[in-house]
Amino acid sequence: MNVIEVDDPRDERLADYVRLRDVNLRRSLEAEHGLFMAEGEKVIRRALRAGFEPRSLLLTRRRLAALANVAESAAAPVYVVDDDVAESVVGFDLHRGALASVRRRPLPAADAVLSGARRVVVLEDIVDHTNVGAIFRSAAGLGIDALLLAPRCADPLYRRSVKVSMGAVFTQPYARLDDWYGGLDDLRGRGFRLLALTPGPGSVPLAGALAATGPADRVALLLGTEGDGLSSRWLDQADAAVRIPMAPGRDVDSFNVTAAAAIACYELVRDAPA
Amino acid sequence: MNVIEVDDPRDERLADYVRLRDVNLRRSLEAEHGLFMAEGEKVIRRALRAGFEPRSLLLTRRRLAALANVAESAAAPVYVVDDDVAESVVGFDLHRGALASVRRRPLPAADAVLSGARRVVVLEDIVDHTNVGAIFRSAAGLGIDALLLAPRCADPLYRRSVKVSMGAVFTQPYARLDDWYGGLDDLRGRGFRLLALTPGPGSVPLAGALAATGPADRVALLLGTEGDGLSSRWLDQADAAVRIPMAPGRDVDSFNVTAAAAIACYELVRDAPA
Repeated sequence: MNVIEVDDPRDERLADYVRLRDVNLRRSLEAEHGLFMAEGEKVIRRALRAGFEPRSLLLTRRRLAALANVAESAAAPVYVVDDDVAESVVGFDLHRGALASVRRRPLPAADAVLSGARRVVVLEDIVDHTNVGAIFRSAAGLGIDALLLAPRCADPLYRRSVKVSMGAVFTQPYARLDDWYGGLDDLRGRGFRLLALTPGPGSVPLAGALAATGPADRVALLLGTEGDGLSSRWLDQADAAVRIPMAPGRDVDSFNVTAAAAIACYELVRDAPA
Repeated sequence: MNVIEVDDPRDERLADYVRLRDVNLRRSLEAEHGLFMAEGEKVIRRALRAGFEPRSLLLTRRRLAALANVAESAAAPVYVVDDDVAESVVGFDLHRGALASVRRRPLPAADAVLSGARRVVVLEDIVDHTNVGAIFRSAAGLGIDALLLAPRCADPLYRRSVKVSMGAVFTQPYARLDDWYGGLDDLRGRGFRLLALTPGPGSVPLAGALAATGPADRVALLLGTEGDGLSSRWLDQADAAVRIPMAPGRDVDSFNVTAAAAIACYELVRDAPA
């Protein structure tokens, strides 16, 4: 067991964990070192089960017992600190008491995640990490074959996304499009029917649009940014605009993007062959 | 137009708006005065359209024009303040620039919202205001006939719930159960089939359970607290345990409660008669 007690919050060995709420710092630090943060026992265990390799773990003293078998089998150093040292390093009360700094892996190319995929969801510029995490959790839980992310979509491995996804970002196949403007051409070329989810005029109920495709047909559902929805470029590129039917008389004009994504993913896989 | 310029953040006329992030203060202040906060132009307009009466409005100078017609027709005073006065009163940068202090109305009895209802969702102790707001938005958007809230469920008219619901709390019929232990007896007595949503063992797919009931039958879906789910008391009381089918191999053991609620509400109304 590679357990190392650390008393000084400025100890260089804790550098991966500094100021977790400082978004700008974290973006550059994590990109430079190719790492991401997994927080809490459950999520850390899922990262390891998914084959990710930790650079190190940071545990508060009272969490060491709960994670003893992880600490024992980890090839990486396990830093054990007092609660106040943890708080001083990360910048808030680390009440879950467990963090892992985990090595990123190269993202697969779109080709790799699309091969064999029949039900795909494409996220155009979902910018909120909480929403990205929640969408991954629903997509993974329901068994969406692949997620594709537009270039400006938020990072699924950012700490908040990982946490909200409860680790679903580790098992849900996904890739990033490197071209927004022409990004959908490749999908169309592969025979995917492109359905744009939008409450706007001209859209037809999602269930009906799916019933018109065979369950073995390839379908890609396009989901737009919070607030403004899909860009006109992507709306134009889609084969059809689809919506989740809304009740009249409630003065509600749209769903929350994570609720819409959950319903859409559910509908996408409902009749899909196992 | 009853517009009143106020320069002093300590002005007693702004007392409804103080320290909006101080949960304990707000709970007692809002209960004592029978008010709730509506935030942002869209939500304020929805509150008024739903027939709620403002005690007053608080607008920053640059938002007055956008809400001029509301300000003109409001019988209540409209306080106009500079950005820094607003921030000093509410305790944060009021970037939406518009608040209304709105009179609460007595909640209807369960009897009133259940009369004629066929599709009902019952929330047992959802304690997070964000989740309550998100569930109301999905339920209202999809047309759930009524929501019933267990005694310890968070307040849908708390500022954060109102905001996340985008005003759906104004139009979605709901009532509060005043008895947790025996609260489901009344529903059963009215002929509702009680379906407990849980990923636990013994649960059957929700869609199948609904297919076994006629679309005109009365169904109440029970949704449990974040994390722990339904109490064993309510699980015991239900006619059947139902689940949203999950994909194997993704190491996901549950859905986020708002995603589960969205999917369940969607499934509940999917085949319901219009």
